[in-house]
Amino acid sequence: MHIVITGGAGFLGARLARTLLAQGRLSLAGAPAQTIRRITLVDRAPPPADLAADPRVDAITGDLNAQLAGDGADGANGGVADDTVWREAHAIFHLAAAVSGECEADFDLGMRSNFAATHALLEKVRALGTRPVLVFSSSLAVFGDSPEQPLPQVIEDHTLPTPQTSYGIQKFIGEQLVADFTRKGFVRGRSVRLMTVSVRPGKPNGAASGFFSGMIREPLAGLPAACPVPDATPVAIASPARTVEGLVRAASASDAEWGPRTALNLPSLATTVGDMAAALERVAGKAATALLDRTPDAAIQRIVKTWPGHFETARARALGLAADESFEAVIREYVRENPDAVKLPGVA
Amino acid sequence: MHIVITGGAGFLGARLARTLLAQGRLSLAGAPAQTIRRITLVDRAPPPADLAADPRVDAITGDLNAQLAGDGADGANGGVADDTVWREAHAIFHLAAAVSGECEADFDLGMRSNFAATHALLEKVRALGTRPVLVFSSSLAVFGDSPEQPLPQVIEDHTLPTPQTSYGIQKFIGEQLVADFTRKGFVRGRSVRLMTVSVRPGKPNGAASGFFSGMIREPLAGLPAACPVPDATPVAIASPARTVEGLVRAASASDAEWGPRTALNLPSLATTVGDMAAALERVAGKAATALLDRTPDAAIQRIVKTWPGHFETARARALGLAADESFEAVIREYVRENPDAVKLPGVA
Repeated sequence: MHIVITGGAGFLGARLARTLLAQGRLSLAGAPAQTIRRITLVDRAPPPADLAADPRVDAITGDLNAQLAGDGADGANGGVADDTVWREAHAIFHLAAAVSGECEADFDLGMRSNFAATHALLEKVRALGTRPVLVFSSSLAVFGDSPEQPLPQVIEDHTLPTPQTSYGIQKFIGEQLVADFTRKGFVRGRSVRLMTVSVRPGKPNGAASGFFSGMIREPLAGLPAACPVPDATPVAIASPARTVEGLVRAASASDAEWGPRTALNLPSLATTVGDMAAALERVAGKAATALLDRTPDAAIQRIVKTWPGHFETARARALGLAADESFEAVIREYVRENPDAVKLPGVA
Repeated sequence: MHIVITGGAGFLGARLARTLLAQGRLSLAGAPAQTIRRITLVDRAPPPADLAADPRVDAITGDLNAQLAGDGADGANGGVADDTVWREAHAIFHLAAAVSGECEADFDLGMRSNFAATHALLEKVRALGTRPVLVFSSSLAVFGDSPEQPLPQVIEDHTLPTPQTSYGIQKFIGEQLVADFTRKGFVRGRSVRLMTVSVRPGKPNGAASGFFSGMIREPLAGLPAACPVPDATPVAIASPARTVEGLVRAASASDAEWGPRTALNLPSLATTVGDMAAALERVAGKAATALLDRTPDAAIQRIVKTWPGHFETARARALGLAADESFEAVIREYVRENPDAVKLPGVA
């Protein structure tokens, strides 16, 4: 089996690749599990060293739109101008995207990276006629609260998305394209809406939600961190492990298990920024929370406050997916997985 | 004031133009009404003779995508390669579309006519920076019933669309684009979901819903007509007059009246095919219903049966919009408006 991961050098893509390589086999759309012989990571950036060293891993480095247009022949495998990588893919995890903050600041970037690239990818596999399983990473950002149209208290599987950001609109459009290309039989698509992923290791990205990880990661490293929204701000969190679990389950579920072509809300832990800070203090003491800079950032608040904090995800539960137990457990998992990134004395 | 109507030579576009010309003035987004000095009809087909003869009417004939790309210089005004028509538009009614049956049969046609053209139109006005009022005609076809995801009994303003046709998907994507281009301040967009329009005069089009008009229009003309779905088939009907009323109201409503950027479901009369036939018989006798050919058409049934028949349109009601009183009244209005098309003896 050959698997392609777009955005495969990013944090989630790389973690997904490691998870797939570790399990060695994957079931696609309810079929018996097969051995994973190759994973191709398509990304602007080269893959992390551990993945690059795995003989089962290929990398294609460059702009996804250019790759799909066939003029991106700068990859380690001579590029994909000949479509080989797409033609041979049994499953595609489409994670490549510009993030929320970037898309709000640069409308054209978002339309190109999230809207045009997703459309081009779908047209590519349609033209090839290979009908791969395609898992599309959408986002809770399709839900947006506004004064004219307040969100319900709890988001359910059938709640109407009313995106209040360009990122949310572009992801929601991607879901619609995946649904229709699937209905037409061009691809076997599954759209999953990722929750706010925390704690992300590594460097901050341009996402408006970035501080939800930074406010934990940086203090644990002994560094100051911005936490620019009020304590009461609700947030629907999922750990990296739970998030990757959702992506893999989307690929493996049979059509009957998966159900409608509407995107699936992944499970999330309903918490608040204040409770996250309290959990940080329980794990790492006052020395950690003393590093939080609570100066408000109006631009980030404006985006984040439109997102919902509470989900009731019956459909995901029926697929065997569950939320993290507590945010404290999420932090402890991060500490366990990233010992080198934890510098604050007394945390283990 | 200059108004552009895409699809302006079609039945609805022409009727909208006649209505606007008759009222002579239009209020845009709550502003005081102003005199309509020019209406430009953009369409593949030339406009009807009565409109072409009006000194306030211009016509640009050709493919909308080509017009927007600036290479459609085949219009009566020397084409729009210089963008003048778009630059001078205070309001744009975007009605041009490929219809449901066509889009199901020819996926690329639908993507080009409904998806790419709507996107190109929005990018055009964004580039010009003129912020016109843009009324986008979406459709009840964004709602689709399926075994995996049954529609609720009654569609409300916040019901989640789950389109089951490419046409429905493309219209729903158009709504999302209009919403985000509006939020960003590139255009003042309003999306309205048209109901099944009946009785359409003139010739049948490629819409799967075409028989909802044909089953009335053709018998009244003394001609046989297909009625290829069961009597119990529910349908949400609006007369041409009510439909145009909704389009005009969308343009004139202030932002506060309009409310959220989510598309507006226009009012509809909840009826059934059987009740429509019964109304025809009350107006035109058994001689009319005897002309109905009830041979089932599986392709049409497959599309039509996914559409909802019952709407509760609180938001439209608050805007002062109402459904037709009865389907019998709708037929009598058609007879009154189209005396030359009624040939069956004894109908007046």
